[in-house]
Amino acid sequence: MSVPRLRSLVLSSALLFALAAHAEEPAAAPPARSMQEILDASQPADWRPLDPKNTLYLELEAGRVVIELAPAFAPAHVANIRALAKGGYWNGLSINRAQDNFVVQWGDPAEDQAQRKPLGRGAKAKLPAEFARSSERLPFDRLPDADGWAPEVGFSSGFPAGRDPAAKTAWLAHCYGAVGAGRDVAADSSDGTELYVVIGQSPRQLDRNITVVGRVVQGMELLSVLPRGSGPLGFYTDPAQRTPIQAIRLAADVPKKERTPLEALRTDTPLFAELVESRRNRRDDWYKHMAGHIDLCNVPLPVREAEEPPAPAKKKPARRRR
Amino acid sequence: MSVPRLRSLVLSSALLFALAAHAEEPAAAPPARSMQEILDASQPADWRPLDPKNTLYLELEAGRVVIELAPAFAPAHVANIRALAKGGYWNGLSINRAQDNFVVQWGDPAEDQAQRKPLGRGAKAKLPAEFARSSERLPFDRLPDADGWAPEVGFSSGFPAGRDPAAKTAWLAHCYGAVGAGRDVAADSSDGTELYVVIGQSPRQLDRNITVVGRVVQGMELLSVLPRGSGPLGFYTDPAQRTPIQAIRLAADVPKKERTPLEALRTDTPLFAELVESRRNRRDDWYKHMAGHIDLCNVPLPVREAEEPPAPAKKKPARRRR
Repeated sequence: MSVPRLRSLVLSSALLFALAAHAEEPAAAPPARSMQEILDASQPADWRPLDPKNTLYLELEAGRVVIELAPAFAPAHVANIRALAKGGYWNGLSINRAQDNFVVQWGDPAEDQAQRKPLGRGAKAKLPAEFARSSERLPFDRLPDADGWAPEVGFSSGFPAGRDPAAKTAWLAHCYGAVGAGRDVAADSSDGTELYVVIGQSPRQLDRNITVVGRVVQGMELLSVLPRGSGPLGFYTDPAQRTPIQAIRLAADVPKKERTPLEALRTDTPLFAELVESRRNRRDDWYKHMAGHIDLCNVPLPVREAEEPPAPAKKKPARRRR
Repeated sequence: MSVPRLRSLVLSSALLFALAAHAEEPAAAPPARSMQEILDASQPADWRPLDPKNTLYLELEAGRVVIELAPAFAPAHVANIRALAKGGYWNGLSINRAQDNFVVQWGDPAEDQAQRKPLGRGAKAKLPAEFARSSERLPFDRLPDADGWAPEVGFSSGFPAGRDPAAKTAWLAHCYGAVGAGRDVAADSSDGTELYVVIGQSPRQLDRNITVVGRVVQGMELLSVLPRGSGPLGFYTDPAQRTPIQAIRLAADVPKKERTPLEALRTDTPLFAELVESRRNRRDDWYKHMAGHIDLCNVPLPVREAEEPPAPAKKKPARRRR
């Protein structure tokens, strides 16, 4: 960090080899690995491929945004989103809202119900509220860290989540990149056509108040930079400000050679626990005070492109995909 | 909310009159006011004018970003920033870094020390680390809400802050919009020339590790939309991607008619406590689950333009400015 241009906040990637033990550490503590070292040491089994049936591509002129859907938490919404995507519902519609430090949102901009695009075959106009689900028999990789919004927090199916052991419920948390289904005042008034993405400080007050359907795993920087709307709630006042949606497709409906083969780091492994600890207590030379804590929404959830597109299983088993 | 176009997240402003009591509330509870109603009922004494000596204007082609400086927490850095601004240090330099969900940062992009812009008259090349200060005799409007990063959190001089009663220290928190002074590995290696602004989930792990000098109070949407850099740490790889800085000036050095007269809501009033509670427990019809909690960085800190520029005190006392 002797380069003045980088007189800057130092991230893990910048100090891979600056791992001198922190002065307050016990002398016997083993040297801690940085996040990058942990990722570099990961094995294929530490990663899971995204399921094309649960992967949505939002295609913009600027590029592709990849969303992982969460059928374990929002089965009815995910089924509807699959049907809407298959029918090309969003193709030609637009991103209509960008509210700073809150959300971007897309769907049909028409205010007049008569002018709104039909949902198409197989898509339902009415869905149940899927704000929370039973936590029984639900895998949950709990964080030990305290949280003000939920009795317990952690990860389920790779998603940041909250859990209430007394109520035996669990729900997805509104972290940066969370994708939710906009609704009216009635709890069951979302149909999955109006989707929003969190682009700022996590609005956890929305947890258990709206159906979270997934999260953006790649391409957030295509959404977070959209000009903010000047109308109420950040809606654009001039239709020309809207960002056109070229298409929203389920990866499974896209030819394999056009897919983005992604893998997400599993959250149920010792390696992931080590990664979280490396972020909870930064032991590199730059940090002078170890936090001793990490918030759910500050935990990185690494995603990487698979080294090669998955080959057809019958010809050549893709061993990394166990 | 019957307009489909607004099938969306509902903010306080959208449901001003939808204040039916929540089903779980005790029957005797008085009707709660929304944030907008609270602001509408505010009195001049609930607001404080920004001090031109502590107000920095970052002038971009897209408009003005207004920063309130925090001399109570970073006196040496603020003094240096004032000197740098007076000398026109940043004029013609650029925003050189935008890392998604983290920070934007500006300063001198030159990597070669010999090519870097001289600091100018009155600016120091070396400053002390101002990560935390004594909490004794420091006004602190404490939030009752738990926080994982600090023993206590609240507001001091209008800034989100943490406090440790055992260590008798207080520090500014890295919330959305926080402005800090980039540094190298040495704690005292910042000179205030490289400033960054938080544009994503609050990176509270930086608290007590770097000097926070203030916060953006207007114009965040001019910074948060900047294209993200593709180099390490979000630095731009192509100089053409940098955003030129027309000027950074202290408001006190700007002719009065060119100033942006802003007032910030005071954080030491019953009205502010009511506002926080209105966000901690949303009682409008849209919310089905009251959080019973608010994170420090989710508390809104309203700022408004003064109804008229402050008149010179000798001629016409501006009564709102008590």
